[in-house]
Formats: sequence, C-alpha cells, structure tokens
Amino acid sequence: MSRKKINIGLFGFGCVGQGLYDVLSKTPGLKANIQRICVKTKGKTRSIAEHHFTFDAQDILNDPAINVVVELIDDADAAFQLVSEALRKRKAVVSANKKMIAEHFQELLTLQETYQTPFLYEAAVCASIPIIRNLEEYYDNDLLESISGIVNGSTNYILTKTGSEEISYQDALKEAQAKGYAESNPELDTGGYDAKYKLQILVAHAFGLIVKPEALYHHGINELGPLELNYAKEKKLKVKLTANAFRNQSGKISAFVVPQFIRPEEKLYQVDDVYNAVVTKTAFADTQFFSGKGAGAHPTASAVLSDLSAITYDYRYEYKKRGSNDSLEQDQAIKLRGLLRFSVQDASYYARHLNTIEESYANQEEGYFTGEIGLNNLRKLQQERKGNFNFILLSKN
Amino acid sequence: MSRKKINIGLFGFGCVGQGLYDVLSKTPGLKANIQRICVKTKGKTRSIAEHHFTFDAQDILNDPAINVVVELIDDADAAFQLVSEALRKRKAVVSANKKMIAEHFQELLTLQETYQTPFLYEAAVCASIPIIRNLEEYYDNDLLESISGIVNGSTNYILTKTGSEEISYQDALKEAQAKGYAESNPELDTGGYDAKYKLQILVAHAFGLIVKPEALYHHGINELGPLELNYAKEKKLKVKLTANAFRNQSGKISAFVVPQFIRPEEKLYQVDDVYNAVVTKTAFADTQFFSGKGAGAHPTASAVLSDLSAITYDYRYEYKKRGSNDSLEQDQAIKLRGLLRFSVQDASYYARHLNTIEESYANQEEGYFTGEIGLNNLRKLQQERKGNFNFILLSKN
Repeated sequence: MSRKKINIGLFGFGCVGQGLYDVLSKTPGLKANIQRICVKTKGKTRSIAEHHFTFDAQDILNDPAINVVVELIDDADAAFQLVSEALRKRKAVVSANKKMIAEHFQELLTLQETYQTPFLYEAAVCASIPIIRNLEEYYDNDLLESISGIVNGSTNYILTKTGSEEISYQDALKEAQAKGYAESNPELDTGGYDAKYKLQILVAHAFGLIVKPEALYHHGINELGPLELNYAKEKKLKVKLTANAFRNQSGKISAFVVPQFIRPEEKLYQVDDVYNAVVTKTAFADTQFFSGKGAGAHPTASAVLSDLSAITYDYRYEYKKRGSNDSLEQDQAIKLRGLLRFSVQDASYYARHLNTIEESYANQEEGYFTGEIGLNNLRKLQQERKGNFNFILLSKN
Repeated sequence: MSRKKINIGLFGFGCVGQGLYDVLSKTPGLKANIQRICVKTKGKTRSIAEHHFTFDAQDILNDPAINVVVELIDDADAAFQLVSEALRKRKAVVSANKKMIAEHFQELLTLQETYQTPFLYEAAVCASIPIIRNLEEYYDNDLLESISGIVNGSTNYILTKTGSEEISYQDALKEAQAKGYAESNPELDTGGYDAKYKLQILVAHAFGLIVKPEALYHHGINELGPLELNYAKEKKLKVKLTANAFRNQSGKISAFVVPQFIRPEEKLYQVDDVYNAVVTKTAFADTQFFSGKGAGAHPTASAVLSDLSAITYDYRYEYKKRGSNDSLEQDQAIKLRGLLRFSVQDASYYARHLNTIEESYANQEEGYFTGEIGLNNLRKLQQERKGNFNFILLSKN
C-alpha cells in the first residue's frame, strides 16, 4: 500500500504541540512535515524558528499544500470552529481535544461523512493507550459487555500522592500542574469533567451509543476529605476516579464517572501516578486490561503520531456499531453501592435517599453511610449538595 | 462501508473449533455462517448435527460458496497444506496455528501477496489480547523499542501452581492438560517452543524482521527444580516464562524465550494462571501493558471472531515494517544476567562460561551461580547439557 505524504498545519504549540515536534523529528519513516504552526500569543520565545509560526488560522486552512490539520489548542469552542472548517476543506484532522469531541460528537461525525474526510483522536482518551483503535477494530462485535478504567492522569497523580504519600490535596494538585499533567483549569480534571468527556467518546465507540456528555453522571474528587481517605487507609483500599460503562441485563447502557474504592486484588489497584488503564470485559474472553501513561507531552504526542501514521494509509474510524438500538439505562434502574459522607445534622436527610444502609458512622461533625443508592437519588443529592456531601463507589450492584 | 457476508469452511472441531461455534451463535451482528466442518476422526459423537461435517478437505477447498477458511487443527504440516491451498484459491484464511505460521512465515507472506488474499492470525499469539493488530496498526512507526511478555498460558498456569500453590510440576501439568490449556504434546509448551513460535510472529510485526524460529534462543521450564523455586520463594520472586525482543543500541534486534525471575514491582508479577500479558516500550511513551486470557477455547475463539469480523471489512495485515534493514543481534553481543544451576562436580566447567559471577551457592549435589553470560555461551551450555543444567534470567543487561 502506498503511503500518502502528509503536510501538517498545527494549531497550538503548548506542551503536546512541542512534544509532537520532538516525536516527529525522531520518526523519519513517517513522511510527515510540519508546514505551519498557528499560535495565539505573539512575542513568546519559542524553541523553533519563527518562520514556522503564524497567528492567522487562515494561513493553514487556506493553504492547499496542507492536507492534515493537527488541533492541539485548549479552547474547545475555538477548536471546534477550526476542526469543522478543516473537515469542510477536506483536510484530515487529528485532535486530542476530548471536551470538543464529546460536546460535538454528532456534528463531527456528520462532517466526516459529508466530506468523506478522516477525523482521528486516539490521543483524546488515555493518551498512550490505543483504546479507541481497539474498540473500533477489535471489539467491533456484539460481545463487549463493559469498559471501565482510570482515564484521567491528573486526578490519578493527585490521588496517588494523597494516598500512599499522604501529601495534601492542594499540594498534590500544584505538583500535577507544575508537571503539565493538569488542564489549565484544574476543575476540568478534579471535577470529573475531563473523565466524563472521555467516557462519552468511549461509549460511542464501545456500544455505538452517541449521547450528550451532560447525560452521563459524574462526580469528581475535589471534595475528597480525611474521612474517606482514612476509611481507605484502614481497609487497605485506594481511591481512584473511574469511568464506567456497561450493558445491563435489560440490554441498556449504564455510564458514569465516580471516585471509587479499589481493592488490592483489582487490576486498577496497581495503576498509579499518571498511568491510565482500561478494563474491557467480553462475553467469552473474560477481561482484557490495557495500561499506559495517560498524560504528559510525549505520551499524548505518541498517540497523535499513530493517528498521523494511520492517515498516511487512509485510515478512518468506521463507527461500526452506530445505529444499534442501544439507549442509556434510566437513572432509577442503576443501583450503586457506595459510601456517602455528610454533615451529622443531615444524617436523616441522607438516610432517606438510600435503598439500604449497611454501616453507619458519625463523629461530632460528620459521618458516613455505606449502602445502596439509585443513581436518580445520587444525582438529586449532588444537585442539592446539602452540607458536607461526598460519594465514593464501593461496587456496582 | 458495506460488509462482506462470510461462509466459513472450518478445519478442526476440537476445543477452539467448538468454542468458535459457541461464540458465533452469540454474535448475530456478524453475518458469518459455518457452512462445513472438516474433521479427521470418524464416528465421534459431536455436539452439532452430522450433516455439517465432512472428512474430505476438498469439500471445503473446492466449494466456491465458501469464501473464508478457518484452520484450527493441531498438525502444523497438514495445516500449512490446507492454508496454502485455500490462499491459492483466494479464500481468506484465519488460523491460530503459531507453529505453522512461524515455520512458514515467508511462504505465507508470499502467498498473501501473490493471491491478494488476507491471512489473519490474532488468535495465534496471546489469544484474547489484540497484540498483532496493535503492532500492525498502532505501533507502525519507528518508536517501538521493545516488546516482552508472557505468551504461553499453559506454562503460566503451571508456574502459578508450582509457585504460590506449591503443587508439584507433574500435577500442575496434568491439571493444565485436563483444562484444555496445554497442547496435546506438552513439550511444545513446557519446552518453550510454543512461546518461541509466538515470539517469531511478534518480531515480524514489531520490527519487520522475518527470521526462522530456530534462529531464536529458547529455554523451557521443564527442568525447573526445587533449587530455583526455593530461590524464588526466599526472595519473593515469581518464575515466569517470558518472550523478549528489543532493539539494541547498535540498532540490531535481540530476541529470546527464557524462564525469568519477576520482582513484585514488575507488571508481569500480577499475571497469573492462564493470563498472558505483553509490555511494549516506545521511545516517547514509556511502557504500555496489555493483559488477558491467553489460552482456553473461548478466549481463543474470540480472537478468531475478531479476525472474521475484520475480513468482512476486507482488512489485511500490511506488514508495514518489512523491508527495514533490521537483523538479529549476534549471540556474543547479547549479555544476560541470570541464575545458572549445575551439578556440583561441574561447577568449574560452568564457571568458565560466565563473564562475571556475583554469587555462588552449592550443597552436596547441586549449586548455582548468578552472574552475566553471553547468549553464545548459554546456547553452548544448552546444547551440551552437562549434568543438572538449568538457566533462569534475572535481568537483561
């Protein structure tokens, strides 16, 4: 098969953009050349010669010599405009922008089809783990039952530090930002939004179900307190932020992002620092496990590189499962077993929302219940956020 | 993309063949129909109706309605004849026969190209782990530095039992055979041959280097004795049979199969029973880790299923890295740090073959050295097999 030569127009020259430049310089076999780089801020000192740069997106979008656009900017709205315009001009696009992809999934799909142009985004989910490609190509049949994992490197880094190293949440967050692992707005990571965007993308490729990210429940780690951390420590558990999607017995799909207690015998227990991991379960082959670095300039750039290489072979996602009759399970049918933390004066209010209470604990200020709760009630509690509320999953029922 | 409807001619109805039948019956989305099954033994009671079966291979090979051949028989020579003939008749082929594939790699490649017909064999390496597909599609660039892992489920099952459960080697082997995890000739597994065939296939897809399996050093687990098992126990190590391939600083490829001591902090430590696992290391993204069931009817059949699905989309391996100038590293340039066991009277003979000796131990019958040895010397020792010889890798130098 002959390989297409690619001339890249790159948007963004932050962490990952510079990483891509490094990686491409070490892969002469891939005939890829960065023709132009569009950046926002003028007058910054940059590591490569000035003539590569432009401040006008049209210099890339209107250049007929550029056949591939790599979009690595922060602003999801601006990114969507650039990516849409590039696809309309039949330039193949590679992006790592999960927020943009998740929020505009259907529109981007329509653009790919209308203009018969590839749009690849392996780097958007779990950086160096080739999970989207595997869902597209290997799990393209009816046997996939569930997919779950740690999909946000920044929160996993923070949780590793607050867990085993007992560093405070704030210090761990600062460290993650200093190392370039966290989004510029840390709430995107710690609030669970980033993981939710990735889950939206995973659900689309795993089950062919395209939903708006808002439809998926998410609960971040930014309210994690000493009570839960102590509970984990005493019971030799770790806390991880997990994304989960599975087919219920009814055939419908449940999908949510929650902090979760992980037991030592579980595969995710060993996944620390900025590593991400995904566990897939299929009807006949039990579980498969994939892990790798989920954040950082070079791991993300490596995933971009694989997409670029795929484009030289005219690879496109086929979204093979789309059109299946899948739909999201209703909230009240999803039962979660977890730990619910509250301020002592709100104990009876929280008790009312649980289906069962297994254990209860309280000191003079706060307490917790463990037990089963419906996702409808959990969503309600999260909206009302009465007192000192938090939730951590123990197991999926 | 429209999907091709596939009519399967199946050779072999053992463990995996029956597994495939089960799996296909649960995947209506894949338009695949088993038209005919060719088996060897007459008069056996089989789980499906007799009219499906034939004893004449030509009933499949000459049937123009059959467009895909699935080869799941034991005999590698017979398998090669069937697969060659099917490819010459432009029938796509799926196989799980690593011995056949490794021994005839170049011929099978030529047949695929001459007849422009796909030949897929994901099930041949690590069953349920999609490693070949990932090497072909995701690691198709210059950045892959090494691939290593546990690629034989049967020996891993045995080593798990002899290790933590302290069951004798013979009983563990019997158990593995009873569960259908071991080849009908157990020496193929325990002698390291099966792992070597898989390594040959991995090296071809990882580095584009096609070698004869004989060129790769392999050392099995069938001489594992109490001295080494006790060494592992005392030092909290596990013994695993690992396949290893990596690019040296010289740019050449080293590849070998050896029993290896694994430390608790290594990823392979957690991989027990019939699970297989592969660790890939790339220049910019550190390591990725894949694990899943590596033996058993249904995990293997699931991999066959994914190949069948790929055929409906006209997928073919591209062998993209072939034609690179890679060659195998010379034996004397490959230095291994390991434990070498011997009968006491042979101590000085063995000492002469080591580059360095770190530790030595002896009781009245046997002893060991730990230290560095060149692969040329290890090969010589293995051929001469003086006294009570065994080798276990401690680390790659």
